This record gives sequence, structure tokens and C-alpha cells, in this order.
Amino acid sequence: MRLDELNWMDVENYLKQEDRLMLVLGSCEQHAYLSLLADTTIPLALADAASQRTGVLVAPALPFGISPYFTAYPGTISLRASTLLDVVEDILRSVYRSGFRRMLVLNGHGGNQAARARLVEMANELAGLRLAWYEWWLSHSVETVALKYGLKPSHASWLEAFSFVQVSDLPDEPKTPPAYKGLLDAEETRDLFKDGSFGGPYKVDQAIMDEMFNTAVEDILNLLDF
Amino acid sequence: MRLDELNWMDVENYLKQEDRLMLVLGSCEQHAYLSLLADTTIPLALADAASQRTGVLVAPALPFGISPYFTAYPGTISLRASTLLDVVEDILRSVYRSGFRRMLVLNGHGGNQAARARLVEMANELAGLRLAWYEWWLSHSVETVALKYGLKPSHASWLEAFSFVQVSDLPDEPKTPPAYKGLLDAEETRDLFKDGSFGGPYKVDQAIMDEMFNTAVEDILNLLDF
Amino acid sequence: MRLDELNWMDVENYLKQEDRLMLVLGSCEQHAYLSLLADTTIPLALADAASQRTGVLVAPALPFGISPYFTAYPGTISLRASTLLDVVEDILRSVYRSGFRRMLVLNGHGGNQAARARLVEMANELAGLRLAWYEWWLSHSVETVALKYGLKPSHASWLEAFSFVQVSDLPDEPKTPPAYKGLLDAEETRDLFKDGSFGGPYKVDQAIMDEMFNTAVEDILNLLDF
Amino acid sequence: MRLDELNWMDVENYLKQEDRLMLVLGSCEQHAYLSLLADTTIPLALADAASQRTGVLVAPALPFGISPYFTAYPGTISLRASTLLDVVEDILRSVYRSGFRRMLVLNGHGGNQAARARLVEMANELAGLRLAWYEWWLSHSVETVALKYGLKPSHASWLEAFSFVQVSDLPDEPKTPPAYKGLLDAEETRDLFKDGSFGGPYKVDQAIMDEMFNTAVEDILNLLDF
Amino acid sequence: MRLDELNWMDVENYLKQEDRLMLVLGSCEQHAYLSLLADTTIPLALADAASQRTGVLVAPALPFGISPYFTAYPGTISLRASTLLDVVEDILRSVYRSGFRRMLVLNGHGGNQAARARLVEMANELAGLRLAWYEWWLSHSVETVALKYGLKPSHASWLEAFSFVQVSDLPDEPKTPPAYKGLLDAEETRDLFKDGSFGGPYKVDQAIMDEMFNTAVEDILNLLDF
Amino acid sequence: MRLDELNWMDVENYLKQEDRLMLVLGSCEQHAYLSLLADTTIPLALADAASQRTGVLVAPALPFGISPYFTAYPGTISLRASTLLDVVEDILRSVYRSGFRRMLVLNGHGGNQAARARLVEMANELAGLRLAWYEWWLSHSVETVALKYGLKPSHASWLEAFSFVQVSDLPDEPKTPPAYKGLLDAEETRDLFKDGSFGGPYKVDQAIMDEMFNTAVEDILNLLDF
Repeated sequence: MRLDELNWMDVENYLKQEDRLMLVLGSCEQHAYLSLLADTTIPLALADAASQRTGVLVAPALPFGISPYFTAYPGTISLRASTLLDVVEDILRSVYRSGFRRMLVLNGHGGNQAARARLVEMANELAGLRLAWYEWWLSHSVETVALKYGLKPSHASWLEAFSFVQVSDLPDEPKTPPAYKGLLDAEETRDLFKDGSFGGPYKVDQAIMDEMFNTAVEDILNLLDF
Repeated sequence: MRLDELNWMDVENYLKQEDRLMLVLGSCEQHAYLSLLADTTIPLALADAASQRTGVLVAPALPFGISPYFTAYPGTISLRASTLLDVVEDILRSVYRSGFRRMLVLNGHGGNQAARARLVEMANELAGLRLAWYEWWLSHSVETVALKYGLKPSHASWLEAFSFVQVSDLPDEPKTPPAYKGLLDAEETRDLFKDGSFGGPYKVDQAIMDEMFNTAVEDILNLLDF
Repeated sequence: MRLDELNWMDVENYLKQEDRLMLVLGSCEQHAYLSLLADTTIPLALADAASQRTGVLVAPALPFGISPYFTAYPGTISLRASTLLDVVEDILRSVYRSGFRRMLVLNGHGGNQAARARLVEMANELAGLRLAWYEWWLSHSVETVALKYGLKPSHASWLEAFSFVQVSDLPDEPKTPPAYKGLLDAEETRDLFKDGSFGGPYKVDQAIMDEMFNTAVEDILNLLDF
Repeated sequence: MRLDELNWMDVENYLKQEDRLMLVLGSCEQHAYLSLLADTTIPLALADAASQRTGVLVAPALPFGISPYFTAYPGTISLRASTLLDVVEDILRSVYRSGFRRMLVLNGHGGNQAARARLVEMANELAGLRLAWYEWWLSHSVETVALKYGLKPSHASWLEAFSFVQVSDLPDEPKTPPAYKGLLDAEETRDLFKDGSFGGPYKVDQAIMDEMFNTAVEDILNLLDF
Repeated sequence: MRLDELNWMDVENYLKQEDRLMLVLGSCEQHAYLSLLADTTIPLALADAASQRTGVLVAPALPFGISPYFTAYPGTISLRASTLLDVVEDILRSVYRSGFRRMLVLNGHGGNQAARARLVEMANELAGLRLAWYEWWLSHSVETVALKYGLKPSHASWLEAFSFVQVSDLPDEPKTPPAYKGLLDAEETRDLFKDGSFGGPYKVDQAIMDEMFNTAVEDILNLLDF
Repeated sequence: MRLDELNWMDVENYLKQEDRLMLVLGSCEQHAYLSLLADTTIPLALADAASQRTGVLVAPALPFGISPYFTAYPGTISLRASTLLDVVEDILRSVYRSGFRRMLVLNGHGGNQAARARLVEMANELAGLRLAWYEWWLSHSVETVALKYGLKPSHASWLEAFSFVQVSDLPDEPKTPPAYKGLLDAEETRDLFKDGSFGGPYKVDQAIMDEMFNTAVEDILNLLDF
């Protein structure tokens, strides 16, 4: 259940029995052949699935994240790190004010990890606030699934190629991951990664994707028990 | 067409022939019996309708706005004014970097008007950037429709009761708008407005809503011609 | 009575019997043939008049506002929106610390409306703070006076041509308001508005100006009763 | 000549022959028996006098400064250091945009010295900008006058007791300066300094005040030659 | 060679032949029985070693980082994330202005990873700037050494117990790593981790430590070749 | 005793009996022939000496300060004023959280004086916090020593030429201080001051330097008694 399906009275009723909330942080950035919103859509889909089984509410997903390295790819929208942290703080203060106390942040984008610092600062300040943080592609259980099939996770590869973020055909042949040193700026990143994938197969069997997805949902169900 | 239906290559192709983009600013705040996301959903629906007729792309809607007066209503998520302005700046710089030059901002929430100042600051800085700003409920043509039916616009009343933001039944009887002076804080606002509507009928004929919607879409089509 | 006529002991005595204060927000921006400080001088004159009849203190006027659209006109001094909000917050915290509790903000410049968001944020935070906001040129009663004489308000026109902000002769012939769409940047604004007036007559009978002024003072007296 | 006596066309004409401007930074803070605005009124009076002899324009004085140590005295309005620096930056960028190139900042308040850092940052960024900074009470020539009469400068003493900032009678007997160590907070400051003067005589002969004033004006005339 | 052994003329000479610089980001936070400055001292020691073999200059280490989770341990000094990012930006702009172009950032503290976002933003802005980032304890080669000896890295354990950060005796017995879910606030962190170590042995053979250190130095030498 | 020689348990023990702390603010900026870190090294040496006689702890020195005027000299690293103030605030909040209550700030760099404003703001906010501020080169007692030997203090001259900041030979002949008016930007500063010294002898007898140093230590011992 998402906030947009409710009015404030529904939320007030919900809070009489429950104080958990899922917050989704995404991005709008190049994902090679996949949707620009993949990092938003995937964690939101996971949140919806977890919500269906627990009834825990899902706040509106933030569809922008920290992506300075991808701004040479058209369609990428990058927030400054300071901006993202402020957005996260404001969201957190607001839902705390509403009465929510246990927030599970489902982050869909590696570049957003800077937000963790602000989350802990908030937890130090707001009495009774409890926070959890989940990044599906870094989860040990999801990684185990990948290893089982001899697959390695990487940006904009098979890893993120869920059917619901496919917006065009995907190449059949895997891509050799380019080698590099140092922190690349936006131009260097595009020069190096060309189509934007960081390498490996572009797609795998639907069954593997389903297994990955279900594993991540199980992780979330486990984390929601806090 | 929304950005989430595209990958970056699609956007690159789009930009070879077109440099317009619609940006949607919303809010997540109490709307009495209507969806908490009404201010996001309505301008996004208008953008989608205008996009269908022009092919102009729609960026992901920002589902949070400046709503400090409503934070005593659960489910309201308010950004500080400074945060919203930073988000708007970052979005604008990013899409300008992508190559977009004419941006129509569809603002769905009165509290976001502070963002206009930052928009003009950006226009002063970024060469060739052209901006337009539209708030459907303040439009002269939409107001004319309302007047024709003897209706007055107000927050969370019939004005916003489009079918796609109705999440519960609406009261049959109109509400008398409460009188007040000064700027209210969040507690005073809830004490005064109780269910959250600012007064007037809660709903009107579907035909009127359609006429309002279509009028706003015409406004947008006109504004997109810049 | 203005703060500059007092020392701190006078203010301490004042606060034993009274907790109201008038704050004036202005601007320093082009007003065609009128004084660059018109937006500061007019609300300050209104405040002085209201102070004379009520004894309510007037804080020093802030002579700068948010005017990014006018920076191509020499003499315009524009604060970033974020700066103005910070100034307003600091002033408010300081006078609250002094013991003032009811503040009437007399805003003389449309571009400053972004400050309202910060005011409400402050009201949410500072217990017992009560705020009111007044913009004379948007007041229903002042508008009624204008309508009575068939006049329409617009920037740097007859509306603001009080004798005390006239610094040069005013054109005899009215100006046709230029038409435009979208948000203009500073260069476009100057190109379009040339002398800076947004159109209409440059001056009207002194009696009308007096009626306008007195009407606005009555509004303020009414608002001070909060 | 102050900006409020001019319209933008006057400034445009002025800039054809001259690019100097005087900026006045003041404060609104306790000055014992003197006006709360003493730090604003004094440098503004000096600027007016220098303007009369040179024709150099005077921008609107900023009537607020950094005064955190005095906030326990009612009527004191203190800006955060960060706020003042932002205001100073915005003013500087605006007048630079207008075409002014040589700015003499007349600072009336010791607490504002933090602004110097931002001024140099601006000078590093804005090509051709030239800045000077003057604080009348720290001037060597003014100090020489004081020494000649065996007087020592201190806050809210004879030093600032110009007739135009006197708003009440002044004590006849001098005050013994209180001794202290460390940085005092606002409460400690009021506890220690009681009436707010930092000590010494509260007033001296008008002739001395005139000599001080004229000496400072000469300093400014000298500095304007840059 | 560190900057404090040089004057500006030395740096000017250095820049005639070389444009590389090592920047050290540290922290001042609890490390159980080890020095509060371990995260600063270790990367600085690595930088010194690499400097001795390459002549590349070492900038002054920043001895504070982002440590909000450890503030319940006395002696921990935590910068807000926004502050650290600003410091990093200012350092980078300054050394770029000096003429350095290739900067290797040696980060000693996991909490500082938020700074990477700002670094990429800077790389996008400053032409010709090249950046590399190294965290010794996350290096693949260092991890390989640990695995060889069956050791797992964790905060304030054997991993960081270099002789030069030992300030007291270390426990002989290893610690069982406490289990937890979610993001802990400062109080919860101290309650859970007690002495502050995240678990494992507190010390290992000096030879292993030397091998770790030398491996990290080799990594740095390799990275400096960019 | 410096924090880097301790672990958190040592600090906890220290705080059972003592709540004083010395904080050192420095800079990394041109000092003519002297070390770029002179402004950091000198106050740190003073702090160490005072610590040896009192046992009062010394926090890690901040090796960067506000030096926009010196950025044309290679090796100078300048923080924006706003950044320094934020660092100082974060340090202060952290050590206050640890339990320290009396902080003596030893500032080694004139440009850092802007930080005083933030310190007082903190003192107003944090109950029981007591602050002192010391700048050795402005101290009356140190000035008296200089006067005794007919010496005048100035940047990068004999005044700062302690043996422990000498990194190269010093000129034998004194330098005539260059004359100037106004605030210089970075380029003008280098053009004017050439080698970077503000004038006077480059060195004096070691005995004078010792007397200066000891006098400053006495000042600090006196200030620590608060």
C-alpha cells in the first residue's frame, strides 16, 4: 500500500496500530538499454511486494539520486550530495512528526550511500526513531543467488534487467568490463563505458531474475521485523 | 511519454529534434478525503495528456513540496523551502546538461511558488535556457470554467476531486470555509480546518471536472509553444 | 515609533505591556521613474502611520529583496531566495528572544513571497509565536479602491507612484502593458519592459493615492488586532 | 546621494562617468542609552558627508549585523555569521552586475568583521572588482584624536555618543570598565555589562565629537581615492 | 615529504616538474584500545612511505571525519556530512589553484565515503583535474593478505592495530562480533559494541601487520602512476 | 597530552576529573621562507607546552583556515569562511557531547577570527559551555616583549620565525613593509608582497623568540584558569 492510495485519515488510523514505513530512494540515470528509472522502479517493486505481505506502508519514491559520474549521458538527473541529504532529512522529520518510528530505507542506487551519514545524525537527534537500510544488490542472500549461477553483479547489466525496467531490446552477447583506475568524471565515464553497462551479460533467464527478486523480498520481510 | 519509459539512447535521439521537457512539482500533503498525493498526481496527469498530443517528454514528478502548515496532519511530508529550491536547481542543471533548453514547470502545489525565484536565478545563469511555469488551478481559463458553474476554488475541495485522486467517499454537503487572520502554524491549521478542506462543495459533476481538466491541458499546449 | 528612536531599555519597558512588532520587508530594484527603494519606502510609510495610531513598534526595514528578474536594470540589488529566508529567520529568532510574540510582516515586494514558507516553519518551532503577513497591493480593500476608479495595479505604474517615492517627472501618457509568456530572465525582462513599468497610467490624482494609502493603513490596523 | 533618491535611469547615467559606491554595514543591537541603530546610523552619516563632497553614491545601509553576544538585551537583532556573509555576497554581486567596480565598505559594527573573508573571496572571483574596508572607530587618525583628549574608545561609551544617536539622557559619571576573561555568552554579557556600556565616560564635548566625525570623513575621502 | 616541511617557494619549484599530491582524510573517533586518531595516522603513515619512494607531496591530513554513530564514546569528534564535503571541496579547489592536477585521496575512515560524490562533482567542474581514491582496508590486495592468515577485517580490531597507533595494552582474547540489524544510533552503538571493537582478534603478529602495510604501500605506488 | 596519544577510555577517565580542552585552529598558507603550516605548528607548540604544565588535553589541530588573500601563493589551502565556521561548530558540539565544558581555542591565524561569531552562537545554545579565545601574536604581554626590543609584529616576519617552523634560510636584511590601501585580492597580494613577508626583520635572536614563546605560554596558563 502506497501513500498515494490513502488520505490523511487513513494514515492516522494506520498509525494507531503500526509505526513502520518503507522509504524508497532511487535515481534517474543511464542504465544502458534499461529504463532511466531502474534504480527507482526496482526498490519500489520490492517495497510493494513486501507491503502486500505485511501491510507496511510505502512512502512516495524519490526518483532522483546522486549521479555526477553519469551526467554526460542524456536523461541523467543528478542531485548534489548536499541536496539529497537535505531531502532525506526533511522526509524523515516529516514522517517522524506524523508518528512513524521505524523506517526501512530501501535504497536503489549506490551513489546515494552518502545519505546514511545524515540518517544516523537524525537517529541521534529524534528520540525513539529506529532506522534500517537495505540495498538489494549488495545483500548477501542476493549475492549468493548470483554466485550460484556464476554471475557477477554490475551496473546496468543482467543484474538490473528485470522485465519491468526493460524498455528496449537487450544485446545477446555479454560485454567485457572495461578496466580503469581512479575516479572518473562524467566525460571519462561515458568515453569508457560507452553504452553504459559496466559489463557482463545483459540478460539472464527470467527464473533467475525471479529468484533474485524473491530473495530480496525475503530480506526485506526479515528487516521489517525490527 | 515519461522518462521511465526510455533509456538514455532514446533521450539522445529525442534531443536531436526537440529540446522541450515538462517538469512536475508536486507535494505529499493532506487533501482532506482525497489522496495525499493529489498535488503530484493532477499535474502529472495533465502532463501525460499534453505529452500524448505533442510528444514532449515528462520528467519524473517530484512527489514532495513545501507544506509546513500541514505537518500536523499525518502523512504530510514537507521539504524545507531551501531544500526544494536546491532540488529544483539540481534537476534544472542536469536536464540543461543533457541538452534540454525549454522547460515547462507544471507546479501542482501553491506552497512551491518559492521555487520561481530559483528558476529565474538559473535562467540568468544558463545561456539559452527558457522557462515557463504553470499552475493549473490559478489559470485564468480554468477560473473561468469555475465561475461559469458558480464555483470557487479552494484547497482539497471539489476543485481537486478528480476521479483519479479519490481514495474514499466524499461528503455530500458542502463545507463552510472557516475564517481566520494571519499565518497559521501547523497545529492551528489542523484545529481550524479539521478535515483539511478549505471549504465549498466536496464534489461536482464529472462533466465539470472533465471540462476543467481539458481546459488546463489546452493551457499547457499553448504554453508549450514557446 | 521605530527601533532607531529607542534604546534597549525602552524596548524592555515596551515589552512589559505589549508584544507586537511590525517587520518591513522591501527591495531595492528598478521601479521605472520611481525610487529604487519604492518597495521599502511604501510599507515603511504604512507601518509608521499604523504605529502612530497604535504605538506598535516598527523594526528596521530590510531594504533588499529577491529580484533576479530585474538585475539588468542598474541599481537593482537582489538577494538569493535562500539568503532572504535566512535573514527573515534570524530577525524572527532575535525578536522572539527579545520577547516579542505577535509579528506583523509588511511585505512591500512580490518577489519576497518565498519568505512565507520560512515564517511558517518558524511558527511551527517557536512556541507562542503568532504571525501575520500583509501585502498592501494585493489587499482586497485596496483592490476595491483601484476598481472604483477603473484602474489596474501593475509594477512601477500609478499604483506605486506615491509622492514620497517620486524622484523624477512621470510620463503623462499611459503605457500599453507588453504581452509575454513564460518566466523571463533579467535580459529578456529589460528588453520587454524597457522603462521598467509593467503598464497602465504612470500617475493618478493625489486624492486616489491618499485613499489607497489610508485603506491600506486601515487593513493594517485591523490585522494588528490579533 | 543615496540610492533611494534615484531611479535606475539615474544610476545608469551615473555609471557612465563613475564606478564607485559606498556600502554601509550596520547592526541593530544594544548601545546602552544610545539608539539601537547607532552602528548603522553613524557610518551612514559618514557616508552621506563623504557623498556630499564627492558625489559618490551610497547604497541602502544593512541595519542588521552579527551580534550574538547582545541578544539578551531586548531590541537586539542578530544575524548568523553565515547569513551576513551571504547578504554581503549578494549585494556585491548585484552592484557588480550593475557596473560598479570600486566599492568602499563602511562597516559600523565590530562583529561584522567576519564579512571581510567573503569580500576577498568575491574579489578573487569578480574580475576588476576593487574593494576597500573602513571602520571609523579603529582608524589610526580617529584614535589619535581620542588620545589627544585622553579618551579610550569602547562600546556604547562617549565614542559613539554623537548627537544624532542620542535617544535619552546620558549618565554624567563615567563607568568603570568591568574585567573579564574568555568569550561571554549573551546572558553573561548582560550580567557583566549591565547597562551595556563597556566603560569610560558616557559623553564628551560636542567639539570633540565633531572633530572625530570630521576626521573619519577625511579618512573616507582619502580611501575613496582608489 | 609533507607540506609542513616546505615553504611556498618550494611548492612552486615542485610544481614545475610534478603535479601530483596525496590528500589524507582521517577521523578522530573511538578505536577501542587504539588511538582515537588511528584513521588519520594510518593513511598518513602510508602516504609518508609512498612519498619517500616517489617524492610525491603529502598535504596536511584532515584529522576529523563523519562519525555520528560513535559520538557516545568520549573523544569522538564528528563532522556533519555536509561539513566534510565542503572541507574536501575547499581543499581541492585550493590545491588545483596552486597547480596540482592529479590528486590521490587516501581515506582512512569508512564514514567519509560520502565525500566521493563531491569529488566527482569537482572533477566535472575543474578542467584537467584527475582524482584517485584509496581505502587501504578495502583494497583487494590487502584483503588477500588477511585471508591468507584466516583473518577478517573489522573496526578497531587487529586490522588497525599497527604499533604506531597502540596507546595501551590490547586484550589477548578475540572478541565475538555482536550481531545486529538496522542502522544504530550513537547510544545503541555503544551499548552494543561496548569497548568499541567490532570483533575478532585484537592483535596479530607484527609480521602480518608489516605485510599489510607494505601491500597497501604497493597499492598506492601503483595508483600514483596515473 | 594530545588526543592521538589516548583511546576513548582514557578520555572517559580524564573527564571524571577535568572538563577543559584546548582546540587549535591553524592554517596552511604562505609564510614567506617559513613553513606553510606555521600558523598551525606555533599554537600547537604553545598548547603542548601548556598541556605539559597543566595536564589539559589538546584536540587535533585543524591545519586549514581562511586564507583567500594568499591563494596565488602555491601550497596555500583556504577554507571558505562558511566552511571553517561549520567545522568549528561540529568540533565544539562533539566535544561538548563527550563532556568537555571549558574550551580554550588557540587560534594561530588572523583570518580565522570570523569563527568567533559561531563560537558565541554555540555558547548561547549549549548550556554550561564556557569558551576562551587566544591569539598569541595579539596578546598584550607578547606585544610588550616585542616593544621592549623595538620590534613590530607582521605576517611571516621575525615574529613567526620560531626555529621549529624554519624550513629554509632566512634573509639577513629586513624588508621594508609595502604600503597599500583597500582589500587586496589574491593576485594583488602576491604582486605587492612578493616573497610573502609583510615586512620587518626576517629573524631575531633566539633568546627573544624564547621569551615570546614563554610569555604566550604564561598567557595560556592564565586563561586556562577559568
